[in-house]
Amino acid sequence: MSQALAYAAQSATTPLAPHTIERRTPGQLDVALDVLFCGVCHSDLHTARNEWHNTLYPSVPGHEIVGRVTAVGSLVSKFKVGDIVGVGCMVDSCQHCQPCAEGIEQYCENGFTGTYNGPMFGGENTYGGYSSAMVVRESFVLKISHDEASLAAVAPLLCAGITTYSPLRQWNVGPGSKVGIVGLGGLGHMGVKIAAAMGAHVVLFTTSESKRADALRLGAHEVVVSKNAEEMAAQAGKLDFILNTVAAPHDLDAFLALLKLDGTMTLVGAPDSPHPSPNVFSLILKRRRLAGSLIGGIRETQEMLDFCAKHGIVSDIETIAMDQINTAYERMLKSDVKYRFVVDMATIG
Amino acid sequence: MSQALAYAAQSATTPLAPHTIERRTPGQLDVALDVLFCGVCHSDLHTARNEWHNTLYPSVPGHEIVGRVTAVGSLVSKFKVGDIVGVGCMVDSCQHCQPCAEGIEQYCENGFTGTYNGPMFGGENTYGGYSSAMVVRESFVLKISHDEASLAAVAPLLCAGITTYSPLRQWNVGPGSKVGIVGLGGLGHMGVKIAAAMGAHVVLFTTSESKRADALRLGAHEVVVSKNAEEMAAQAGKLDFILNTVAAPHDLDAFLALLKLDGTMTLVGAPDSPHPSPNVFSLILKRRRLAGSLIGGIRETQEMLDFCAKHGIVSDIETIAMDQINTAYERMLKSDVKYRFVVDMATIG
Repeated sequence: MSQALAYAAQSATTPLAPHTIERRTPGQLDVALDVLFCGVCHSDLHTARNEWHNTLYPSVPGHEIVGRVTAVGSLVSKFKVGDIVGVGCMVDSCQHCQPCAEGIEQYCENGFTGTYNGPMFGGENTYGGYSSAMVVRESFVLKISHDEASLAAVAPLLCAGITTYSPLRQWNVGPGSKVGIVGLGGLGHMGVKIAAAMGAHVVLFTTSESKRADALRLGAHEVVVSKNAEEMAAQAGKLDFILNTVAAPHDLDAFLALLKLDGTMTLVGAPDSPHPSPNVFSLILKRRRLAGSLIGGIRETQEMLDFCAKHGIVSDIETIAMDQINTAYERMLKSDVKYRFVVDMATIG
Repeated sequence: MSQALAYAAQSATTPLAPHTIERRTPGQLDVALDVLFCGVCHSDLHTARNEWHNTLYPSVPGHEIVGRVTAVGSLVSKFKVGDIVGVGCMVDSCQHCQPCAEGIEQYCENGFTGTYNGPMFGGENTYGGYSSAMVVRESFVLKISHDEASLAAVAPLLCAGITTYSPLRQWNVGPGSKVGIVGLGGLGHMGVKIAAAMGAHVVLFTTSESKRADALRLGAHEVVVSKNAEEMAAQAGKLDFILNTVAAPHDLDAFLALLKLDGTMTLVGAPDSPHPSPNVFSLILKRRRLAGSLIGGIRETQEMLDFCAKHGIVSDIETIAMDQINTAYERMLKSDVKYRFVVDMATIG
């Protein structure tokens, strides 16, 4: 065992503060790494504050992790000391169910092990990337091939990147597709960049007139302010696929109406209170589908990282020091971030 | 023009009563037919009573029609006098949009023409199958190859049959699939028969313990009383596809939870008031889909009729005389029918 510096919430109502955790001695299949950067995801805040009513304390959030390998187990073949690596939302899964066999460990039938807050379906706690060092099973460690100068901005790819890349791939977005991205936040801005790089025509939907210019800069071909009925009507029945990243309850019918025949809208945000119930006719009259998607598997995460490296895609970020995390949470709640906070872990100790 | 006997509603609050309508002189591409049998669909009642707020009066419902050809236009090649034919929910569409070109006229971008109550998106009224005779464009007339003795029970295939067949085909139900059918009414009992004939393992979900034996007789391999939490739990994550035929608002999450990874539940019933809003996690955690489906195209309707003839599938019906239609509506509202009323049109005048 070794000790690592971390930032932890000790309860739902206490701010994150310095805390010392233990990391296991690397086993034969483990990779030990120093955390260089960790992105700040909304899930971190939900968990630290027990908003999903399942938090184990102390809670050390963080699952958008870029680090440098410091040691590898004797059977590790893919990584060596000094390599730059990534760790995302999962650090283990059962490895023997059908989804695990297919490389979609996020749907592990026995519950994957979250990078923080332990196994999805109960069990021992795990501590995430708001920490100086980690030990992770090789099969859940990703290769990073971006330039070293961009590593802070690579970190959010490990959650925001894969959460948007996976449904875009699942629903065959590419040249010739017309794709809507709903919401321009941490997830939405990645969705715009990735869908555009896949060759799709991208329409960004936002409630804020002020985000119009930024959306175009990020790669959207069109921007629709969703409060503008005329702009919305002009898109009716035009989209092959919609990636809806908004976690606040909103009118899904307004977006379903924009889908073509057999079009799909995939939700990747889960609101605290339900969306207004969608009108069944929205689905029936054009055989449309409303779907969901959860992060992505390890193989697909590697594919996404390689795709982003090839296309020069990183997140738009604001780097912060570890002790600014509580302020960052408050700003995140006000959407006062373009578009992701990333903690520079050199500041932790 | 020629006159036909019909039963019509003159307003939302008047019962259906005898009424004389005019049918056009058959054009070069038209087929004239005497109506032999007409099934009684819930949509007939919704329209007669203006429950969808779009009824044109007088309203002559009926879109599950079996008839005998009495005349054909000079350019008609597929039918001759004396042929037994079917007419379903549509009698025309634009014939030049993409969906029409693909043979999915029910999604015609310019709005198909309903067999009754005129074009979907407004226009002249049309009169349906509660009538002695009709004139229909050849391309919307179906061949019937069932035995003549079963023609009354064939009529409901033209709406209830195709509405269930189409999504089962769309989502590739066949040998090896495990399929749920929710609700055992006019649509559900057709869904059970068709899915079983397609080779699927069929689980019928009903709120009524009393329907258990009947569901098994109709071809279901298992029956689950949906109020029984234990029986429901035993199906969790087991189904590839669910065809949900229930038009009353109900808890969709209870059924979404029964789908496997990447499973789909298709809704073919549209409730008057919305279903409780589905939980987004039901969709996200197993990448499930909630979809809709509207009847079926003409080509697929012919395929369904041929499939049903080959497999000996007809509807379970109760034949009524035309002047019993108002009583039949009241009984239908109480689900007091196994499983479809069919009017014997010889009784009309």
